[in-house]
Amino acid sequence: MAGGCFALLLLLGVQAGLPAETPAKAPTMAEVLAAAQDSDWRELDPARTLYLDIPQGRVVIELAAEFAPLHRTNIVALARQGWFDGLSINRVQDNFVVQWGDPDNARPVVGAAQRLPAEFEAIWREDLQVTWLPDGDLYAPQVGFLDGMPVAGDAVGGALWPAHCYGTLGVGRDNAADSGSGAELYVVIGHAPRQLDRNITVAGRVISGMEWLSALPRGRGALGFYESPSERIPIQRMRVAADVPEEERTPLQVLRTDTATFSALIESRRNRRDAWYLRPAGVIDLCSVPVPVRRKSP
Amino acid sequence: MAGGCFALLLLLGVQAGLPAETPAKAPTMAEVLAAAQDSDWRELDPARTLYLDIPQGRVVIELAAEFAPLHRTNIVALARQGWFDGLSINRVQDNFVVQWGDPDNARPVVGAAQRLPAEFEAIWREDLQVTWLPDGDLYAPQVGFLDGMPVAGDAVGGALWPAHCYGTLGVGRDNAADSGSGAELYVVIGHAPRQLDRNITVAGRVISGMEWLSALPRGRGALGFYESPSERIPIQRMRVAADVPEEERTPLQVLRTDTATFSALIESRRNRRDAWYLRPAGVIDLCSVPVPVRRKSP
Repeated sequence: MAGGCFALLLLLGVQAGLPAETPAKAPTMAEVLAAAQDSDWRELDPARTLYLDIPQGRVVIELAAEFAPLHRTNIVALARQGWFDGLSINRVQDNFVVQWGDPDNARPVVGAAQRLPAEFEAIWREDLQVTWLPDGDLYAPQVGFLDGMPVAGDAVGGALWPAHCYGTLGVGRDNAADSGSGAELYVVIGHAPRQLDRNITVAGRVISGMEWLSALPRGRGALGFYESPSERIPIQRMRVAADVPEEERTPLQVLRTDTATFSALIESRRNRRDAWYLRPAGVIDLCSVPVPVRRKSP
Repeated sequence: MAGGCFALLLLLGVQAGLPAETPAKAPTMAEVLAAAQDSDWRELDPARTLYLDIPQGRVVIELAAEFAPLHRTNIVALARQGWFDGLSINRVQDNFVVQWGDPDNARPVVGAAQRLPAEFEAIWREDLQVTWLPDGDLYAPQVGFLDGMPVAGDAVGGALWPAHCYGTLGVGRDNAADSGSGAELYVVIGHAPRQLDRNITVAGRVISGMEWLSALPRGRGALGFYESPSERIPIQRMRVAADVPEEERTPLQVLRTDTATFSALIESRRNRRDAWYLRPAGVIDLCSVPVPVRRKSP
């Protein structure tokens, strides 16, 4: 965070040539991104990038590097087998989640764990490059971003965990903490359901294609499950990017969140300088901070 | 709020017959609603209820009683003329808003104001029956519910304003504060965009039918506008309920938010007692509190 604050000052310093009586104007997000260097962007690691292909389009998911290693390994193992291919999205609950997997529990899980210990949170580590937000949070002592992932932390309690924001990917479970495996997955499509934090294993987040999930018809059954099998959304394939031929991959880059540019972006969203805003909020909540994504230049 | 806390104790008191060594168990939301009385529910006022009918279904909107009177009068005047009928939803921006009106500015506004002064906030009044939340807020000194509407307040600054949550209805405007009229309307379909608070006139909120708006295809143009006129979602009618024959109305009731039952509901959501939750959050943010709606018994 300290690095972020310094960097923000550096960015403002670009305008230091203005007359002294002109107050320095903080940049808008567009200006922050226009000033970003190539080194502010990173590649996705193909070994932990998933492509969920449905008839509507491709959803690109990044599995978090620092959380839920057992579940990550299991999800990748299932995806490499093609286990999800031909299954379906079975639940779309308005302002909550989209969920997919095997609706009939008819496809055996072989070559991967059928249930895993809970990985609801990680152990707090000082060496992790979290960019903390300055405005606090209702649900946790601290919130910020780690490698693009919205996270919450409790230094005293010694815990760090991924937060449920729009686009967060989690692992469905029954009432028992260890009843999930990654064969049943969900993505948040509504207002951040932060009450789920530390109650369920979060495995990653959607990088692009949220609009294909969020616009699906809502299920009319209990919890938003589709009432008829014909309503289910077929999964054509869910594959690990590393297993997809280079020419079929989606070439994306994500803005690094451990950079001065990202800290400047946070400030540009705390106090919107766009001409439309008459009263900048002066604060921002975790799930309102965007993490920009761009197509890689050929 | 004091009334709400007392009432919560009363509700817990129902279980006072249990052995003394059994800790009183706070009720779940389902239990709170099952114990609600008919007097905890209220009717919608047909004079400030709108039906937005689109091919997907009916969206029921309640115009707020305590905010934006000039805009409410104007929107009602336009709806009574049938001014919105045959126009369209022109913008669906993922994780932000759906917006409707006249895409071509071809339909003159007659018999209603073409622009109105900003009504971004109201004057703080002690006599308003706001049920305040106990956990604070990042964007305002106080937040709670007034007549079903999520609100934020600043007693020192003397202001009270409707908050942008999922389902909030607002009045589109250009950069000038007084450039809106109510002929262009939007509804929030994503994570609460609280940065809009006090920057735009909020007129009400969606009571039912959110799923018809939130599942619309996202526009691919700038700001989520549909690129082609053929993509626009036609508005069959937007009418005031009072103008709709009784048998064509949607008979809904809303849980009153100035009741002990609603305070108990807030507590049931702050600490989820459902068997699934292993670690209740102990807090809740404004836009995560549901305001229940039910079909009126015939």
